[in-house]
Amino acid sequence: MSGDDDIPGIGQYDDFHTIDWQRDIARDRMRHRYIVKKRQDSIWDLIKGAHDAWSGWVCVLLVGVCTGIVAGVIDIGASWMTDLKFGICPQAFWLNREQCCWSDTDTTFDTGNCSQWLTWPEVLGGQRQGPGAYIISYLFYIVWALVFAALSASLVRMFAPYACGSGIPEIKTILSGFIIRGYLGKWTLIIKVVGLILSVSSGLSLGKEGPMVHIASCLGNILSYLFPKYGRNEAKKREILSAAAAAGVSVAFGAPIGGVLFSLEEVSYYFPLKTLWRSFFCALIAAFILRSINPFGNEHSVLFFVEYNKPWIFFELIPFVGLGIIGGCIATIFIKANIFWCRYRKFSKLGQYPVTEVLVVTLVTAIIAYPNPYTRMNTSELIYLLFNQCGISNSDPLCDYNRNFTDVNSAIEKAAAGPGVYHAIWLLVLALVLKLVMTIFTFGIKVPCGLFIPSLALGAIAGRIVGIGVEQLAYNYPRIWLFSGECSTGDDCITPGLYAMVGAAAVLGGVTRMTVSLVVIMFELTGGVRYIVPLMAAAMASKWVGDALGRQGIYDAHIALNGYPFLDSKDEFQHTSLAADVMQPKRNETLSVITQDSMTVDDVDTLLKETEHNGYPVVVSKESQYLVGFVLRRDLNLAIANARRTMEGITGQTIVIFAGTGNQPLSPPPCLMLNRILDMAPITVTDQTPMETVVDMFRKLGLRQTLVTHNGRLLGVITKKDVLRHVKQMDNEDPNSVLFN
Amino acid sequence: MSGDDDIPGIGQYDDFHTIDWQRDIARDRMRHRYIVKKRQDSIWDLIKGAHDAWSGWVCVLLVGVCTGIVAGVIDIGASWMTDLKFGICPQAFWLNREQCCWSDTDTTFDTGNCSQWLTWPEVLGGQRQGPGAYIISYLFYIVWALVFAALSASLVRMFAPYACGSGIPEIKTILSGFIIRGYLGKWTLIIKVVGLILSVSSGLSLGKEGPMVHIASCLGNILSYLFPKYGRNEAKKREILSAAAAAGVSVAFGAPIGGVLFSLEEVSYYFPLKTLWRSFFCALIAAFILRSINPFGNEHSVLFFVEYNKPWIFFELIPFVGLGIIGGCIATIFIKANIFWCRYRKFSKLGQYPVTEVLVVTLVTAIIAYPNPYTRMNTSELIYLLFNQCGISNSDPLCDYNRNFTDVNSAIEKAAAGPGVYHAIWLLVLALVLKLVMTIFTFGIKVPCGLFIPSLALGAIAGRIVGIGVEQLAYNYPRIWLFSGECSTGDDCITPGLYAMVGAAAVLGGVTRMTVSLVVIMFELTGGVRYIVPLMAAAMASKWVGDALGRQGIYDAHIALNGYPFLDSKDEFQHTSLAADVMQPKRNETLSVITQDSMTVDDVDTLLKETEHNGYPVVVSKESQYLVGFVLRRDLNLAIANARRTMEGITGQTIVIFAGTGNQPLSPPPCLMLNRILDMAPITVTDQTPMETVVDMFRKLGLRQTLVTHNGRLLGVITKKDVLRHVKQMDNEDPNSVLFN
Repeated sequence: MSGDDDIPGIGQYDDFHTIDWQRDIARDRMRHRYIVKKRQDSIWDLIKGAHDAWSGWVCVLLVGVCTGIVAGVIDIGASWMTDLKFGICPQAFWLNREQCCWSDTDTTFDTGNCSQWLTWPEVLGGQRQGPGAYIISYLFYIVWALVFAALSASLVRMFAPYACGSGIPEIKTILSGFIIRGYLGKWTLIIKVVGLILSVSSGLSLGKEGPMVHIASCLGNILSYLFPKYGRNEAKKREILSAAAAAGVSVAFGAPIGGVLFSLEEVSYYFPLKTLWRSFFCALIAAFILRSINPFGNEHSVLFFVEYNKPWIFFELIPFVGLGIIGGCIATIFIKANIFWCRYRKFSKLGQYPVTEVLVVTLVTAIIAYPNPYTRMNTSELIYLLFNQCGISNSDPLCDYNRNFTDVNSAIEKAAAGPGVYHAIWLLVLALVLKLVMTIFTFGIKVPCGLFIPSLALGAIAGRIVGIGVEQLAYNYPRIWLFSGECSTGDDCITPGLYAMVGAAAVLGGVTRMTVSLVVIMFELTGGVRYIVPLMAAAMASKWVGDALGRQGIYDAHIALNGYPFLDSKDEFQHTSLAADVMQPKRNETLSVITQDSMTVDDVDTLLKETEHNGYPVVVSKESQYLVGFVLRRDLNLAIANARRTMEGITGQTIVIFAGTGNQPLSPPPCLMLNRILDMAPITVTDQTPMETVVDMFRKLGLRQTLVTHNGRLLGVITKKDVLRHVKQMDNEDPNSVLFN
Repeated sequence: MSGDDDIPGIGQYDDFHTIDWQRDIARDRMRHRYIVKKRQDSIWDLIKGAHDAWSGWVCVLLVGVCTGIVAGVIDIGASWMTDLKFGICPQAFWLNREQCCWSDTDTTFDTGNCSQWLTWPEVLGGQRQGPGAYIISYLFYIVWALVFAALSASLVRMFAPYACGSGIPEIKTILSGFIIRGYLGKWTLIIKVVGLILSVSSGLSLGKEGPMVHIASCLGNILSYLFPKYGRNEAKKREILSAAAAAGVSVAFGAPIGGVLFSLEEVSYYFPLKTLWRSFFCALIAAFILRSINPFGNEHSVLFFVEYNKPWIFFELIPFVGLGIIGGCIATIFIKANIFWCRYRKFSKLGQYPVTEVLVVTLVTAIIAYPNPYTRMNTSELIYLLFNQCGISNSDPLCDYNRNFTDVNSAIEKAAAGPGVYHAIWLLVLALVLKLVMTIFTFGIKVPCGLFIPSLALGAIAGRIVGIGVEQLAYNYPRIWLFSGECSTGDDCITPGLYAMVGAAAVLGGVTRMTVSLVVIMFELTGGVRYIVPLMAAAMASKWVGDALGRQGIYDAHIALNGYPFLDSKDEFQHTSLAADVMQPKRNETLSVITQDSMTVDDVDTLLKETEHNGYPVVVSKESQYLVGFVLRRDLNLAIANARRTMEGITGQTIVIFAGTGNQPLSPPPCLMLNRILDMAPITVTDQTPMETVVDMFRKLGLRQTLVTHNGRLLGVITKKDVLRHVKQMDNEDPNSVLFN
């Protein structure tokens, strides 16, 4: 535990290793004590001390600012390139359609088109309308989509393979104490940002919200290297990463509180409460910076701001719970099919052609999506449209009711749906099926892709359809007792937009199994504080249905698929096994141990060569097996190499001594004292300890291994890998699927 | 660990003991496995299994419903009795002023008076105005206040001494794993509810928000006894109590999310994430029920709903941070003075006359409070008044500006403050000083009293004064560059009400050291989602100032004052001591141990009589001291008594055997096998383990004690009491102040 900094490399970890939280935290406290002690020496040390005390706040401030800026760049870039598929602003090609039309008074609000903005048929000298223009638009749409997707996939393949996917399963694993070198590096960051803009613009069925968490985490990782307190200590670094994940969700949805809760509930593993405040600060700064850049462009700081004239009615809880059940089913279908397809991709030849796969998926998506206006439009716009109520300014076919608006402020009257609504419903059903199928094939291809927005869209479509159904039921059968109370006046008592919102929450909740953070994100996303109860009812129903139909959320399923060594802190260990059943070595094998004062350097070298353990217990003697401490393989290698290099007289016959305090034997000079790398406080359990307690200790204390004793004698070792394998075995899964070094 | 239910009383705890979380959780899992196994036996067992699986949800549902109802009763009762001090509704005496005036069209909005409602001078046949009426009103006010306060204090003194105070320090301690019998019992509940209504109505400077948390926790405790899973397992019961605490804050402020975060951040100790969702459910149900009863009486579900015409301006962050600093200072003055006074009360004769003290404080408060309209009015009304902006309908002197309103919807023009405003400011300064002094003396007297509302009021007063200052500065010096940007138009650019809100958050944050939960409560309380940044800036400044001036928040200070055994999970243990320094016995003492198979019943009895430890390590033999397990004093007593009662042939010479598995020696018949009460998986640490790791294990694993070994031999025991004493000692506090059995 002491002398970490004397021998270079001690205290670091290898790739695909798991970290030892207790040791890292202890190292940090030692460093902290050193700084506090030194602070009295000089003004310079005092300043260094103050810098150290503030570095956590400064670091999250930087992470927040950078995350906000990068999110702004992504929003602006994606919006420009998405519009590029449809046309261009010839006077200033760098403007998107909305900005291009700002200077123009001739805007028609419903399509967003204006005379400044030219669609591709117009650029080529043709007409805006007509079959020829349609075909040209269609072709341009497909070509641009393919170009963007090809660029994105190639960049990912060539420069940063880790930049693909949403990244949340990997970040969960990293935050649980695993090392994946390069996953949060600068190349991953750059390629993920560029690739994300491209893949979002390509019109694939994916969102930018999940990858934003990955991007923010990359920023957190990179910026933490500016502060040695965090950069050189993996356990402390994870505090910054948790805050960064919160900032990522915060900018993705404009939801700082939701972001913090998401980080707390879904992503983070160790979330000490003192970092809650810091994460909140980080999330808020990021949201504030993004809003100052203002890519949403509306006065509300809310992505899908909704305002309904009518509150919800008590009986509506029935359809809301129904929506929750539907959402849970859709989510289960999605998870099962997606995992099936990803497993197929992983173990078949398909996995060798990632760029081709991306191109095929993009081509199919573009061809099918264009004809249907609801799939052609930007998914965020679709969600916003579905969430809205039919007001006076809304001219979409979805609002084709037989009613006349007299005044903006008056109540919306009850009305029968017109033919436009029925046509729109059919298009929405088609869009639902298409989006579901395409998202199943899309999530997992080798471009940056998230699934928040597609999930929300699926749910919003289903919800809107159900909402229109309930609304028309209330219109046509106003005498049913359910409707007779609140719906007896002439006003419209059912708001289909609210159903869309509830449905969106249901599907997203079913897919990710988020709970409180989902509800908070939804109401920060929509500004609808009054709708917590409906949102919660649906999210709860969806989660229960999802849990009943399939145990895992999409992220956990992907973690299992990839075999990441993630010990879920939410699952309870339900079995009755004891530590003795899990520990290595099994019966009839011998445990590799080091004795405290009777092995030579050659003996140790032989042991290191013959075994591959990451660490060795140190015992009093081979006969007694009474435990003295624990030494890591890596430290042992480094220390012996260092001794050979720096000390004289080290031969193969030199005795290696790990004596504890107090009783160092006075052995003759050729001995190598290695007590500085000996951990004299290893965590031990008895062989009769139930595995549930052991698992609890691994989770809560962040252990890397624990030693098993019986009546004081060492019996064996349980490593995190043993625990993970045991959990898999108990759940009847393949224990060898765990990826681990 | 096994056979808990065979011997009655095993698995229970004595008063003022600390619980063993690992053991309780293990007991619950065993019970759960038993139910799961038995579920296949019959339909009835299947139903029992389903009931068991749902009981957590049903229990929090019941807690939510009951909390909502009780909160409604308290709100209605307190509002009626508060108005009773001023007058009565003769036609229906059970109505408060507002309800009394509902049926009356003759209401004047600014005073709330109407012809139906009679003030006491009118009841006695006099006039509403005039010096005589004033004196009669004054007298009635004082008399009623004294009556209410005397009733409240006497009830508390006679029936439930635990019902006094806010209860939050005690609930924090209980949730950290301490047993205080009766603290959450039915008598405490009843007296706290009645006493709270009375003490709030008496006009003392106290709030009902803190006690609501205690009341909800009482409900949680009582209702958990309906479900053996929770009622008979102290660790599981704390999950319900955490949810109940969330519900308490939820109904106190109408803030379900804030309540959950408060429970998570401030109150709870073990908050497994799977209970987050359940707590949220509980908080939401409680808020929903309360809103259905609708004591706030306005259409918004928000206690202090605010709506400002103007957003905040960036430069305003400077006064907001300034308010944070002021708030931190006010909070520090309050905490230091209150703790000084409470310590004086505790160790002087004053503590023996609680009712007299309450009467004196009430009398002084009533005499001073009545003449000043801002202290005479209900504190909640004062806060609401201060938070509001001066609109067209606001006729308080605070809004006496030289401006003419033309239209409700038009912007508020900039204006100079009139004489009414300056007069109001002087009254507010007086009110600030009075409230601060009275709250110092009030918090801690023997009636139910909380300090959320007084803290908010203090901050709101300070904030409003600062706000008016900044507003008038901007009006008088519009050319200062700070104001020249946003304040150059004729509209009022500074909203003093917002400053009041920010100031309220600052003082409350300084007093309680809440962070995220404070901001969320404030914005749920006011509906002002746009003001997260100002609120956070002020809360942060206030917390930092508070932390710099005095380490502890008010609840932690009261925990320390009362010597509760609370091991704060937020404080870091900063010292370098080792387990060997803390363990019992110290050098030159011997450790009381039991040998596994060589002690007689008489030996054990002697040991139990001569020592007072709560548990004894079991070792192989006195010579070797190799650890076998751990046995609790209570279990040992019960088991021997049970054996004497039920088994034949148990004499003082019978050998007591704790043999582990496998190697039971075949001793002759007169032996007593006690392996069922032996915990064969005690948590052990080595003597070289740093205390920071030990403290961490106590916190995270919820240990009651840990055994210290060296090379496999038992050296000593560290109990939670030893840890707490050591922490106190290291912080240079009296280690003997810890209350503990």
